[in-house]
Amino acid sequence: MRVYLDNAASTPLDPDVLAAMMPYLTEVQGNPSSVHSHGRTVRAAIEQARRTIAECMGCTPAEIVFTSGGTEADNMALKGCAAAGHIRRIITSPLEHHAITHTAETCAQLYGTEIVWLKPDTRGNLSLSELESYLKDSTVPTLISLMHGNNEIGTLNDIAAIARMGKQYGALVHTDAVQTVGHLPVNLADIPVDMLSASAHKFNGPKGVGFFFRRAEAPQLPTLICGGSQERNQRAGTEAVPAIIGMAAALKKSVEHLPEKTRHLLDLKQYFMQGLRQHIPGVDFNGETADDRALPTVLNVAFPGTDDEALLLYNLDIYQISASGGSACTSGAVGASHVLTALGHSPLRMAHSIRFSFGYQNTREEIDYVMDKLRILMADTVQA
Amino acid sequence: MRVYLDNAASTPLDPDVLAAMMPYLTEVQGNPSSVHSHGRTVRAAIEQARRTIAECMGCTPAEIVFTSGGTEADNMALKGCAAAGHIRRIITSPLEHHAITHTAETCAQLYGTEIVWLKPDTRGNLSLSELESYLKDSTVPTLISLMHGNNEIGTLNDIAAIARMGKQYGALVHTDAVQTVGHLPVNLADIPVDMLSASAHKFNGPKGVGFFFRRAEAPQLPTLICGGSQERNQRAGTEAVPAIIGMAAALKKSVEHLPEKTRHLLDLKQYFMQGLRQHIPGVDFNGETADDRALPTVLNVAFPGTDDEALLLYNLDIYQISASGGSACTSGAVGASHVLTALGHSPLRMAHSIRFSFGYQNTREEIDYVMDKLRILMADTVQA
Repeated sequence: MRVYLDNAASTPLDPDVLAAMMPYLTEVQGNPSSVHSHGRTVRAAIEQARRTIAECMGCTPAEIVFTSGGTEADNMALKGCAAAGHIRRIITSPLEHHAITHTAETCAQLYGTEIVWLKPDTRGNLSLSELESYLKDSTVPTLISLMHGNNEIGTLNDIAAIARMGKQYGALVHTDAVQTVGHLPVNLADIPVDMLSASAHKFNGPKGVGFFFRRAEAPQLPTLICGGSQERNQRAGTEAVPAIIGMAAALKKSVEHLPEKTRHLLDLKQYFMQGLRQHIPGVDFNGETADDRALPTVLNVAFPGTDDEALLLYNLDIYQISASGGSACTSGAVGASHVLTALGHSPLRMAHSIRFSFGYQNTREEIDYVMDKLRILMADTVQA
Repeated sequence: MRVYLDNAASTPLDPDVLAAMMPYLTEVQGNPSSVHSHGRTVRAAIEQARRTIAECMGCTPAEIVFTSGGTEADNMALKGCAAAGHIRRIITSPLEHHAITHTAETCAQLYGTEIVWLKPDTRGNLSLSELESYLKDSTVPTLISLMHGNNEIGTLNDIAAIARMGKQYGALVHTDAVQTVGHLPVNLADIPVDMLSASAHKFNGPKGVGFFFRRAEAPQLPTLICGGSQERNQRAGTEAVPAIIGMAAALKKSVEHLPEKTRHLLDLKQYFMQGLRQHIPGVDFNGETADDRALPTVLNVAFPGTDDEALLLYNLDIYQISASGGSACTSGAVGASHVLTALGHSPLRMAHSIRFSFGYQNTREEIDYVMDKLRILMADTVQA
């Protein structure tokens, strides 16, 4: 049995999504900027994709900009606001993905942007009153950039409350929602953020495409990638047509099946937690685990024993089980996770922590298989 | 019959290329940054793609950075050099794609970079002695950015000579080679540019992917898209795996079949030119047309008569013939082509100019069909 439990790093492309893409990889070709019939057909398809995404997100099509992924969208938000002088301060947290933390640091270097790092508790929760204290004591134009759901530990931010607080104090608000779009309800009519980033391959769409939402009322941003007039002059370069079509199909399918998908994911997660607690004495979890405070897709497990994370992952890999030791996108990186470090965990605990992340394609049988192998590995560890 | 003669805007995806991509759209999934077997398989595939591209280009794999396309690569080159302070001047030409001209203008705004616009002749040729005069009379650190082949008129720059002159005077040299890579021999061992941009969908690869070449000896550049440590910290974001695999397959096939492909393209182009000269009195061509001075893929035709470009394109479109009135990527834009304007052509001539661009899939029979329809349209025009 081969079990893929690294869905927060990347989800497999859904076969229905591939089927939606296939015409645009075969008979329907051409550049959407061309005015002839080949071009117009492709243009119509990507504008339909934009409408589909807007409907799924509760916004208007003109508020959606297609990008090469979530990272590019994060760069557009932070660098765009800083370069244009819309802001002189970014309030964020050390739990953010490197696409935010490194980009914020780049803004500090390039534009002298001040960075305020909120302090999470040991489960990765942020304090709204700490956020408010920074907002009410300063008139510096500010961008709040906080993720919706954490990719390593699963802890959710109350992004609607954060966005409302931002509005109250006149700050711009951006959220990296790559872990929640397509997995949890994200309705931009209810969540008053100014900007949002999403990535298709996190919700069973293709790799190499994402989108950036900028609310119509939010200030215009300079382009990160200059050139042609694509995306209403907001992002140059020939559109990645098949990938865009795939992203829209994937989001539509995800949103349409959200209740049963969430139910299935939570069932798997709870079933796995139950098994771990029952069979692995001393096991603990990093981040929030309650259904309403965490992603249904992510479970970060602190194992007891002497094996380190690398050896444990290696042994799981021999059993054909794919999980992750660190962040989705830096699983190959050496060194402790910046997220677990920010939670204040000991090096020993961090060295024994593994992230399992679930997808709709996973089954209870797969969880049984993983539990079985973990029991063998843990028994070996204890005996060693 | 449906005839696609807008290959300089975008080429159809080659079925063999799609076949090479399919495993990465179906069974081979995972994030290349993950260390488990799913991730390692994907990582190995994209590193093999990098080696393939490097072999085709005459460079080393470490000199290739995967991007979302040619436009992003152009932005990396110009903004990277300007932002890092490697240069304070860009020498370029008004015939460049907007991905260069608009990006150079952005560098001027953001970093105060001086822009020198070389003056083309009426066929789009640049003067090496004009270039040299700017280089020898100044010690300002300079980037020369000149395209290899022009997308609208087909005129080639002697990029090897330009690169050698750049080296001689200590300037950095970048070339936007999106119209030549995969269509003409481009060997980086013989062409001493420091940087080069390419785009997969211009050589029958997928849309949404390209590459940036930076020679090992060239200065390091700051990242345009910050975040994770992908692409040796030069371009963050999860790699567009299937697209990268497709780009390598497309380039390999193009390069392997280059001599017969070029022969076929030149045959089509000459056959079309011959037909136009024979049947359309007063026809002329914009840009160079000699085999060794122009792209084999591009023919920009100045038609006589009273119909304007838009009406002519519209009528061709009714006959299911796809061609372009302006730049590949701004065919939908209103107004005269910036390239034809820079050549000094009259508004009347520009209003009657159509770009036809050929691909290996085109046939003489298609050209016959197009000639036939053009004769009908021109006869109508003359009678009108």
